[in-house]
Amino acid sequence: MTQLTISKRGHHMPPSPIRKLVPYAEAAKRRGIKVYHLNIGQPDIETPKPVLDAVRHSDFRILEYSHSAGNESYRKKLVEYYKKVCIDINYNQIIITTGGSEAILFGFMACLDAGDEVIIPEPFYANYNGFAVEAGVNVVSITSRIENGFALPPIDDFEKAITPKTKAIVICNPNNPTGYLYSKEEMETLKSIILKHNLYLFADEAYREFCYEGTHFSAMHLQGVNDHVVLMDTISKRYSCCGGRVGAFITRNKELLDTVMKFAQARLSPPGLGQIAGEAAVDLPDNYFDITKAEYKARRNLIVKRLNAMHNVFCPNPGGAFYAMAKLPIDDADKFCQWLLEDFHYNDQTVMLAPATGFYGTTGLGKQEVRLAYVLNLDAINAAMDCLEKALEVYPGKV
Amino acid sequence: MTQLTISKRGHHMPPSPIRKLVPYAEAAKRRGIKVYHLNIGQPDIETPKPVLDAVRHSDFRILEYSHSAGNESYRKKLVEYYKKVCIDINYNQIIITTGGSEAILFGFMACLDAGDEVIIPEPFYANYNGFAVEAGVNVVSITSRIENGFALPPIDDFEKAITPKTKAIVICNPNNPTGYLYSKEEMETLKSIILKHNLYLFADEAYREFCYEGTHFSAMHLQGVNDHVVLMDTISKRYSCCGGRVGAFITRNKELLDTVMKFAQARLSPPGLGQIAGEAAVDLPDNYFDITKAEYKARRNLIVKRLNAMHNVFCPNPGGAFYAMAKLPIDDADKFCQWLLEDFHYNDQTVMLAPATGFYGTTGLGKQEVRLAYVLNLDAINAAMDCLEKALEVYPGKV
Repeated sequence: MTQLTISKRGHHMPPSPIRKLVPYAEAAKRRGIKVYHLNIGQPDIETPKPVLDAVRHSDFRILEYSHSAGNESYRKKLVEYYKKVCIDINYNQIIITTGGSEAILFGFMACLDAGDEVIIPEPFYANYNGFAVEAGVNVVSITSRIENGFALPPIDDFEKAITPKTKAIVICNPNNPTGYLYSKEEMETLKSIILKHNLYLFADEAYREFCYEGTHFSAMHLQGVNDHVVLMDTISKRYSCCGGRVGAFITRNKELLDTVMKFAQARLSPPGLGQIAGEAAVDLPDNYFDITKAEYKARRNLIVKRLNAMHNVFCPNPGGAFYAMAKLPIDDADKFCQWLLEDFHYNDQTVMLAPATGFYGTTGLGKQEVRLAYVLNLDAINAAMDCLEKALEVYPGKV
Repeated sequence: MTQLTISKRGHHMPPSPIRKLVPYAEAAKRRGIKVYHLNIGQPDIETPKPVLDAVRHSDFRILEYSHSAGNESYRKKLVEYYKKVCIDINYNQIIITTGGSEAILFGFMACLDAGDEVIIPEPFYANYNGFAVEAGVNVVSITSRIENGFALPPIDDFEKAITPKTKAIVICNPNNPTGYLYSKEEMETLKSIILKHNLYLFADEAYREFCYEGTHFSAMHLQGVNDHVVLMDTISKRYSCCGGRVGAFITRNKELLDTVMKFAQARLSPPGLGQIAGEAAVDLPDNYFDITKAEYKARRNLIVKRLNAMHNVFCPNPGGAFYAMAKLPIDDADKFCQWLLEDFHYNDQTVMLAPATGFYGTTGLGKQEVRLAYVLNLDAINAAMDCLEKALEVYPGKV
């Protein structure tokens, strides 16, 4: 007789390393402690009013399925958006997805079979692991290092990692969790690798607009690799619109588009209301990003300065996104982050951080590192840094 | 050197049998032909105004990620809804999903591994095939027959189909595409099978409220199989809210809930705006379903009467949902449905139907059957039936 069991895949599915400390944070709050959430990439920036107004003032009478690839009007509007960032595509090369998450899953599903391998520089966005487990794909991580600011690992590291089962490289630019902004030269290096080994390049560019040092060079700007490059995008961070669950799978590879359309048809359509928000967002005034970027840059400057001023703390200056990685003088980041919530408070306040271990594919790496999402205002960041500074003075596991 | 290839899974992924005729319909419209869409389950019933107003009058300032299991307020509200249909669950047993689609995918992913088998009475909702391919799961179909109105196949057929790899049975009740409403006795039969062989029962009850003969007996009403039963639900049809992309994965099996939460966390959250709609829908007046049900019932009565009045056409009376299956005197349903769009019109009108072949797992079955979704008003149904009647008179492949 068969047993009523959970699948192996279900057992292998990793819990979210970012959300696993949530029960401790909830308990701290119940004890009256104020918790500064630097652990998760939920911006505090308001969703632009015209974006929400577009939803509120919409006058349809039936909330219908959209086209499986998303509303044509939205896809055509997105062509305008991409033109502004010098990405030349047509609307048939865009499939609207349920958040960037679904774009990543579709890419894994359509390009890789169970047992195939994808190379990702670590530390990386932890949920890539989840989508890989769902698709039966093996993640092969090559290490980028905090000492050189998490720059792209040397080409030799890629070469060593490539096997006949390798089908794709994932690059998140600017990077979550490191904030690293890949240069044109590094992107050209990736191009040479994908051409030489005939690989896909999955480019997660969720944070494209948030670059503080230099300009963003998109994977879609690479020449001569049209069939290789897939852009995985989302409105979540760009317009502070995480709950809209609207993203996009974009490629110039016709066969891949046709394949992904079959996955898109199976789930019928992406969210209709979020697409209205996304379409309106393209018409925001051109200075919208100037304002949000200036705010994030001021926060980055503050958090990096505060961190590096702490004894034995090192935080490389992140070029983009809204994350910073810091190396702390501690024994174990997981223990420390839990201790911050369970055993520590300073003036009835504490800070919630993401242990970096969950972002590394290699076991044992990141034990002294944490990710900080600067999604709170300057006052809150200062208060959170005050907590962290005090915590590092009294943490029993300091080294 | 590896090749830049589509995955095997991508090749195996079936295109939507419902949407594949769309280009022919578009061409017909360009020729000035009015096309009656009976091919797809997109209701013409308006989304209830209070449901859309809840979205339009919402006053949040940041469209944030919700809890990965969905907003707590919505899950608590859903407990009230389920109480009304005599399903006793608590809010921690509900995980809000992106449409019913995601609930089905989560079930396949969490309970079955690649190579495992799921038994589904055919004809069945075609997208189960897509989710099965995504999860690497094999669909084993056992045949229900139009001659006895698509009743549950005999228990022997299940027994013969069960192997050590069988992990679950999927039942859609009332059924899409057949409209069949499973009786309490049939549900008890399923219970005996899942208990004897330790299987999951995945119950897709998207059309629960739309029952015209007898009452709905939910899989959640079965006693003593709490760990076995998963309810896969959606607001799409219930409230004419397909574009909201809000569904639910519901079970009393704690280990399964914990597993599915990991899948839910990987994609962060279900759509936020759709959840607002779903929460408001629970507060619709109790007579809401009386009105919509009366409308669908009148349509069913008309379409069944019109079909059975045609020469050599047989349409069993569907007990629920808003679909009817009809056997036509034709050579090939796929050819016929395409011919209706390409080569036929009656007073510059034609009708779009779904060939039943796409709903059968067994190749060759359903070649004389079509599915009709009665999602148009009575006048439109009459006009569509006029077209079909004329078409059957002149179709070159009639038998």
